Amino acid sequence: MEKKLIYLDNAATTRTAPEVVEEMLPYFTERFGNPSSIYGFAAANKEEITKRREIIAGVLGAKTDEIYFTAGGSESDNWALKATAEAYGKNGGHIITSKIEHHAILHTCEYLEKVRGYEVTYLDVDENGNVSPEDVEAAIRPDTVLISIMFANNEIGTIQPIKEIGAIAKKHNILFHTDAVQAFGQVPINVDEMGIDMLSASGHKLNGPKGIGFLYIRKGVKIRSFVHGGAQERKRRAGTENVPGIIGLGKAAELAAASMEDRMKRESELRDYMIQRISAEIPYCRLNGDPVKRLPNNVNFSFQFVEGESLLIMLDMKGICASSGSACTSGSLDPSHVLLAIGLPHEIAHGSLRMTLGADTTKEDVDYVVDCLKDIVQNLRNMSPLYEDFVKKQAKEK
Amino acid sequence: MEKKLIYLDNAATTRTAPEVVEEMLPYFTERFGNPSSIYGFAAANKEEITKRREIIAGVLGAKTDEIYFTAGGSESDNWALKATAEAYGKNGGHIITSKIEHHAILHTCEYLEKVRGYEVTYLDVDENGNVSPEDVEAAIRPDTVLISIMFANNEIGTIQPIKEIGAIAKKHNILFHTDAVQAFGQVPINVDEMGIDMLSASGHKLNGPKGIGFLYIRKGVKIRSFVHGGAQERKRRAGTENVPGIIGLGKAAELAAASMEDRMKRESELRDYMIQRISAEIPYCRLNGDPVKRLPNNVNFSFQFVEGESLLIMLDMKGICASSGSACTSGSLDPSHVLLAIGLPHEIAHGSLRMTLGADTTKEDVDYVVDCLKDIVQNLRNMSPLYEDFVKKQAKEK
Ligand SMILES: Cc1ncc(COP(=O)(O)O)c(C=O)c1O
Ligand SMILES: Cc1ncc(COP(=O)(O)O)c(C=O)c1O
Repeated sequence: MEKKLIYLDNAATTRTAPEVVEEMLPYFTERFGNPSSIYGFAAANKEEITKRREIIAGVLGAKTDEIYFTAGGSESDNWALKATAEAYGKNGGHIITSKIEHHAILHTCEYLEKVRGYEVTYLDVDENGNVSPEDVEAAIRPDTVLISIMFANNEIGTIQPIKEIGAIAKKHNILFHTDAVQAFGQVPINVDEMGIDMLSASGHKLNGPKGIGFLYIRKGVKIRSFVHGGAQERKRRAGTENVPGIIGLGKAAELAAASMEDRMKRESELRDYMIQRISAEIPYCRLNGDPVKRLPNNVNFSFQFVEGESLLIMLDMKGICASSGSACTSGSLDPSHVLLAIGLPHEIAHGSLRMTLGADTTKEDVDYVVDCLKDIVQNLRNMSPLYEDFVKKQAKEK
Repeated sequence: MEKKLIYLDNAATTRTAPEVVEEMLPYFTERFGNPSSIYGFAAANKEEITKRREIIAGVLGAKTDEIYFTAGGSESDNWALKATAEAYGKNGGHIITSKIEHHAILHTCEYLEKVRGYEVTYLDVDENGNVSPEDVEAAIRPDTVLISIMFANNEIGTIQPIKEIGAIAKKHNILFHTDAVQAFGQVPINVDEMGIDMLSASGHKLNGPKGIGFLYIRKGVKIRSFVHGGAQERKRRAGTENVPGIIGLGKAAELAAASMEDRMKRESELRDYMIQRISAEIPYCRLNGDPVKRLPNNVNFSFQFVEGESLLIMLDMKGICASSGSACTSGSLDPSHVLLAIGLPHEIAHGSLRMTLGADTTKEDVDYVVDCLKDIVQNLRNMSPLYEDFVKKQAKEK
């Protein structure tokens, strides 16, 4: 980074923690052996992997051998859905999910519908992005093989009633998967208490490295491989283990768990302060996502009469990194499916801004960002013909 | 590594080159942005990725946008086979491969047969592991959608007649995929001259990092995603890009291409010296794989009256890292499918040893290893009842 940046895009990706990199480093040039090899130098890496599996299992209240390493959240989501469909719905079947899932879930569901003959129910959410457990239960059919509801939304931060949904799934004896890519390491998760059968996570969202993630699979769940080949990961996920990645993810999970309580408190206070200032000081804005059941680091607003992309460019010029929707869909001109699902009209959805705090975000950063944002929004509105019309209309009415 | 190791298992994995790690490092803690983000700091990574794509395309004589990054060789193989089957054989179809492919191909084919209703022909190979182009042509049926033949075998090093097979595929208008995980960066490959439509490679086999690889897909080939989700990799492979991994793979490819000619000469001379010494000095042994059409760094022998696993353990005690088959199947008691396919009886296949040289292997290393091996083989034979019987029988016959 050339100049000081205020990085408020931690939902897109995070800085790999220096402690994480330090722990990974020896595994590139020194302890580089293939964990499947028999000689001691390489076989030692198998034990190191197991230790990291143990750490992650501990964070989730899971058993060590229920953690399967993957290349990231998208692979975990694809694996969970496709392999469950295959194992439990051999002749087709029904899946329940929501309209605000990440594309790794939605596009996989579309694939299962179009190419593989499965049927999918996409549940509506309320205006704050909440999935209703009653809706989940009502959608269950005799051929339902899987419920997949994300733990927390990547755009608006809404945290779903996972425990309630888990209980419903259990009652009806249906598998329950949750995409916890935004939640793992950020908020407490216990797979047993919450009735979760499968859970996806991705290293780079919790100050771990990119290109590594895991799928938690409860013992007894019958899904097989998504990537076929060698006998790695207890024959369920082929491919030479990404040893440095696994070491890094283990360290990141350890650090995240140790700091979680403090971080949640600190970040949610900063978040609420930011939400309060914006709500109070910038007119014609709307907070997106649930005000309470919300990720500690997520701030998402729509600003009327403003284009999100212009906002981002102006913020970038001030050294502020933020996002308009999910990073994965940027480049597309369509407004976010999440913002549409919570009922925003196209033009409001277009003027949305997501700012996701990190452990190193300070109150000074927040003040600087809100000050900039006020100016930028006002400047952009001053250039907007829509805003001009609106102001004229307002004046007339007085 | 505590003591000096002689690492002769470069087909299992390689040491990540220090220059590669150096180039990756800034992308963990400084240039950590998500390439899909809009602000300059992160968007710069998109360009960096394109540069690495360009380097790799250059090595293969491909176009930049024909390279798609994956998590490794296994994912690339799964993608090539499963997505081709789906795109070109919607109602089932036929695939041609060989009996000596890596499990990432073979187990994927088995999945396609058992779960998805495709039919697969597994071609025999000759006693040196060569696939015959005539056999490939003879196996073609009206419903054949794909030919997948590996570039070079990971156990015995045999290099296949890829150009001939590519020409046959083209003549019959059938897609041709090659698993080049062992060949990319080791021997020259040109996708146009060789008629290759898809090619798999994996970073950690060429002194790049683990957990990154690519699939080359010729422009016009209609296969879609294997991992569904975000719009990364031109909408064909979802998931936040493993930026450090891609940077590392790019550097590794650049280094491998620059040193290839010298390395091939040096390694094949050392290889032939090692083969010669073993053949001359250790009785009752057999060289596995083609003596000429062979990876420059591969030495594979079967020693009669000896267990491969005992060999490995004794070599490990001397600080020598080697392999009995592929690392992925270690832990299994079955002898390698490759050694059985070239016609070795079970008991001979069991006594096999693969040693794969690296750029830093010296003549002194080779001499030390052969000296150790002579002793170890003799000691193990002295403990073998089979060998005792054999010697007695020999003595009687004289
Ligand atoms: C020929 C071949 N194909 C595929 C693979 C799989 O590559 P990876 O383990 O990197 O997924 C390997 C290495 O294990 C291999 O040697
Ligand atoms: C909720 C959610 N699911 C899945 C993913 C995909 O994770 P990855 O990009 O690491 O594959 C992301 C992040 O992009 C996400 O936010």
